[in-house]
Amino acid sequence: MDIFFRPKSVAVIGATPSSGKIGNIIIENLLGEGYKGKIYFVNPNYKEILGIPCYSSVIDCPGPVDMAVIVVPALLVPDVMEQVGKKGTKAATVISAGFSEGGEEGKEREKALSEIADRYGIRFVGPNSLGVISPHYNLNASFARASPMAGPIAFFSQSGAFCTAAIEYSLGEMFGFSAFVSSGNKANIDDADLVTYFAKDAKSKCIAAYMESTRRGKDLFKALDKASKKKPIVILKAGRSKRGAKAASSHTGALAGSDASFDAVFKQTGVYRAKTMFELFDAAQALAHQPPMVEDGIAIVTNAGGMGVIATDCAEDLGLELSELSKTTLDEIGKVCPPTWSWGNPVDIIGDADTARYANVLKAVGQAPEVKGIMVIAARQAATNLYEIAKWIAITAKLSGKPTVACFAGIENPESENFLDSRGIPVMPVPERAVTALHALRVRGKYLSTKGLLDTPQPNRS
Amino acid sequence: MDIFFRPKSVAVIGATPSSGKIGNIIIENLLGEGYKGKIYFVNPNYKEILGIPCYSSVIDCPGPVDMAVIVVPALLVPDVMEQVGKKGTKAATVISAGFSEGGEEGKEREKALSEIADRYGIRFVGPNSLGVISPHYNLNASFARASPMAGPIAFFSQSGAFCTAAIEYSLGEMFGFSAFVSSGNKANIDDADLVTYFAKDAKSKCIAAYMESTRRGKDLFKALDKASKKKPIVILKAGRSKRGAKAASSHTGALAGSDASFDAVFKQTGVYRAKTMFELFDAAQALAHQPPMVEDGIAIVTNAGGMGVIATDCAEDLGLELSELSKTTLDEIGKVCPPTWSWGNPVDIIGDADTARYANVLKAVGQAPEVKGIMVIAARQAATNLYEIAKWIAITAKLSGKPTVACFAGIENPESENFLDSRGIPVMPVPERAVTALHALRVRGKYLSTKGLLDTPQPNRS
Repeated sequence: MDIFFRPKSVAVIGATPSSGKIGNIIIENLLGEGYKGKIYFVNPNYKEILGIPCYSSVIDCPGPVDMAVIVVPALLVPDVMEQVGKKGTKAATVISAGFSEGGEEGKEREKALSEIADRYGIRFVGPNSLGVISPHYNLNASFARASPMAGPIAFFSQSGAFCTAAIEYSLGEMFGFSAFVSSGNKANIDDADLVTYFAKDAKSKCIAAYMESTRRGKDLFKALDKASKKKPIVILKAGRSKRGAKAASSHTGALAGSDASFDAVFKQTGVYRAKTMFELFDAAQALAHQPPMVEDGIAIVTNAGGMGVIATDCAEDLGLELSELSKTTLDEIGKVCPPTWSWGNPVDIIGDADTARYANVLKAVGQAPEVKGIMVIAARQAATNLYEIAKWIAITAKLSGKPTVACFAGIENPESENFLDSRGIPVMPVPERAVTALHALRVRGKYLSTKGLLDTPQPNRS
Repeated sequence: MDIFFRPKSVAVIGATPSSGKIGNIIIENLLGEGYKGKIYFVNPNYKEILGIPCYSSVIDCPGPVDMAVIVVPALLVPDVMEQVGKKGTKAATVISAGFSEGGEEGKEREKALSEIADRYGIRFVGPNSLGVISPHYNLNASFARASPMAGPIAFFSQSGAFCTAAIEYSLGEMFGFSAFVSSGNKANIDDADLVTYFAKDAKSKCIAAYMESTRRGKDLFKALDKASKKKPIVILKAGRSKRGAKAASSHTGALAGSDASFDAVFKQTGVYRAKTMFELFDAAQALAHQPPMVEDGIAIVTNAGGMGVIATDCAEDLGLELSELSKTTLDEIGKVCPPTWSWGNPVDIIGDADTARYANVLKAVGQAPEVKGIMVIAARQAATNLYEIAKWIAITAKLSGKPTVACFAGIENPESENFLDSRGIPVMPVPERAVTALHALRVRGKYLSTKGLLDTPQPNRS
């Protein structure tokens, strides 16, 4: 599988100079991202594209081809796969659609394709895939309009459109990926293969996925069970509802499977189940960077009483417990706050809290043995310096070693957000999302405790 | 109450030239927003501020004062209120903190303050308020760091920090307010007064609020019941959970009241209850601009199968029903889609859908009698032109008259977002938020049907 993410040479079969066509977007993505390997173009209709020679068949490419990207019409794909086999190429990404997602004829074609690949020992992604991206390797072998940043999240998705949405979203929120795979119809490489590979991949600190169905339920279970012991996994499995399951089945031509059985598998293997795209990536960011929360008891520090109440409601919705603060902790906080502070948890340090008050309260909370996880809320008020507060959040996380998340309420503040992001501390614009991030860390911690895996190396703060 | 939002003159009692102080931020907000009324500064320590004369008491102001903004230390507030009374001013906003939110002494002070106001017939907002903003009137009598845009949402919040977060959030999402009130301790003007006033205010198309507690439960119930018959209301009542309620009580010094009774009141009066800031404003935007959805049955049109499935799951979570499309509708859509479209609802028109396909499918869905509400999802794919699709969404909404919301998945696309926003069509970056917006319209429709109020004028598309 390594070869998909670190190929020394890629051939685009179906490359075209026609702007806007998929076979053109792919060559632009390959050429424009700084990929250092060899790129071959294949298309019998052209002698050259963008001044680069174009070959009539993959067999004619003058050097070895590590990965073939196939983007010819569906009818031609089996023949092309034969040639890929003859060339000795062992990895392919089939972009072309017109297979099992589109009726009986397509199903037959997909079966034929799989047989050819098996005969030659080719592993392939797709068909009906957006492609494969390996950001740390500057490889974008996809027709996505943008390239995601490099980072610690290994991601795969059955839905190509979910991929494009996820890329744009990640660029806005500034998080990155170790691998990004549109798995399409999963005729050959499927969820189980990807999970197994990412579990071993050193650059992947967390595995995240969008799924609708699987054909190899038992293999997926085994793969998740094994991978989860090494690193955290978060999955958005759509088709939870009856009607949603029906829609998922229509979307990919595969049965969605009993949602209850997915749920049971996720619970048993410690997978965090997300219901929305926000949850998926909020949890993934937290799990990729932050230590698991091995015991119950969070502290919510806030300069905005209302935001503290909303966070508390959301934590209770999720079963995420707030610490009962000890007398020692209350006294410590009391020393550095005006007498009107909340004298409890959520720790409402009052709207006029300045940097020094945040710093001192965070110190007390960081040192409190009853506090196992920290959530810091800052709303912009007269005395609020978000950048300075961000620094104290990072200092507290570092000194205490406790899982820490932040909510800068409603605020677009790229400077302090980037500061926290680059230190692996999730920062959210609304309290409920910060609560989800912390909850994912607690679920991970519970799983590790239960399985006796607490000594397993976990993500370190960058 | 009108005088709070359209005063001809405002006096800032406690005005100061010291940068960063609340009494300074308020005068900057008043002077910098284009307020056309007369502004007086009051502070015995200064003869002038920014070249404008400063008076030692409100009584000395040379003209009538419609509204007093009081920002002096708590101990001085009762005396100042006496002077306001003597001046003949009937409206005040008390910014100063140090009242019932801070222990017994503060409670006493608040009681004394109320008695003075009552004696002179003064109505006042606060104490412990961020202030009052009337965007259509260019009046920002608050110490918020930014001013919200003018728009159709009347908003009030018990939490000042929630106010500042809401302003920043609204500027990012580009929606506006008819009035923006930080109600603080609600010693005089409270939720019931505000709801009653906004119900009559022509510029307010929807009432939105953040609440933690109320002291006059029955009055609030009556006010909501009456107002809801005229215009939609959405409330985020925090302190839903046991621990959240305790935190809310600590935050404002008022008892949160039984959450179950709030829930019952909201249900009975047709108030849409939001759990998060996103939900509050997503629902408010939809309710302010879109017609209610009077019968069940939405259609989800999407070029991204996975997003359609997620939307379907979320709709089913909320009890928002999808239409069973008639044979006629299916045939109409079949004519303009490739055969691989979903042949059902969600209407998956396939990843290569271009503008013409969106236009034709939306026409069919708009004309389908079984479809009562429309949700359009567009993920950026090779053939997607969001701006053109936005135009067809607006055309469909106009021609069909059906409640319509959009989701441009994961995408920051200000041009097409502004296009839809300016036509009153909510557009969200993730499907679950678009589902919430449509759900709020369905809840409103159900309420109006049940109460026999369907002929009540409802928000018109701008």
